[in-house]
Amino acid sequence: MKIKIEEAKRKDIKSIIELDMGLADFHRKIDGYYKSGKETRELYKKYLLRNFGRKNFKVFVARDKGKVIAYFIGRIKKPKLYAVPKKVGSISTAFVLGKYRGKGIGKEMFKELIDWFKVNKIKNIELSVDSRNKIGLAAWKKYGFFEFQKKMRLDL
Amino acid sequence: MKIKIEEAKRKDIKSIIELDMGLADFHRKIDGYYKSGKETRELYKKYLLRNFGRKNFKVFVARDKGKVIAYFIGRIKKPKLYAVPKKVGSISTAFVLGKYRGKGIGKEMFKELIDWFKVNKIKNIELSVDSRNKIGLAAWKKYGFFEFQKKMRLDL
Repeated sequence: MKIKIEEAKRKDIKSIIELDMGLADFHRKIDGYYKSGKETRELYKKYLLRNFGRKNFKVFVARDKGKVIAYFIGRIKKPKLYAVPKKVGSISTAFVLGKYRGKGIGKEMFKELIDWFKVNKIKNIELSVDSRNKIGLAAWKKYGFFEFQKKMRLDL
Repeated sequence: MKIKIEEAKRKDIKSIIELDMGLADFHRKIDGYYKSGKETRELYKKYLLRNFGRKNFKVFVARDKGKVIAYFIGRIKKPKLYAVPKKVGSISTAFVLGKYRGKGIGKEMFKELIDWFKVNKIKNIELSVDSRNKIGLAAWKKYGFFEFQKKMRLDL
């Protein structure tokens, strides 16, 4: 298997949205609070089209014979009012198709994002992960992330 | 001790900011990522002045002989793109001065916020709490909140 990792092109958006639908459905199964892939599809497309090419927005894809099999999206943004850093890195989404996992593809894509953050003088990288998403949690811990906040919810 | 709970008045902002400085310093001791009370003071004042009186913003205070000894701030906002509800409740800050804890003051203020959320047809209430803030975590769990996401960070 020869996997090519590179910055996404605008024409990859369609493939990214397909992958994202799977990720949305995965979350929907965990918690009815999350929209299904069908429900997020158009919203996510708009979101990507609006941000694609902006200098605070970066998308990497991995391809197998040209087909997108993984994507990582990073942003540079202002943190909350209470945080010391003026800007932080944020990983909005990261996904590797099931059968391509455990081959270091995610790690390599993550490194590309880190390099981009470093060029932009970012010192803190943040992300949110569902507490019941064991695969996600394990991956981010392996990459050196630690939990610093919990998001809690009460459903009336 | 006779504690009076009511909606905050604009002139309470000064007292709320004083209390908030203590809360900020508490977080700063946990993690250098957070600004100290001295650093957040002006920012928080601006934030409160900007939002005070808006219909999606609600502040309750508890008074002991007129002096503000606790405050709870709630907002109604749009959740993330991936969430099903059109609007959610959010508790931005909640604080009860040390010596007034364990007397049910927080619980009563929380109920006031819940009532306000209910009037506004809110079905989901969210908040973020530092993972190392044991007092906060225990209180929110007692009020019925559950953890659904972890916020993770990598400091380069």
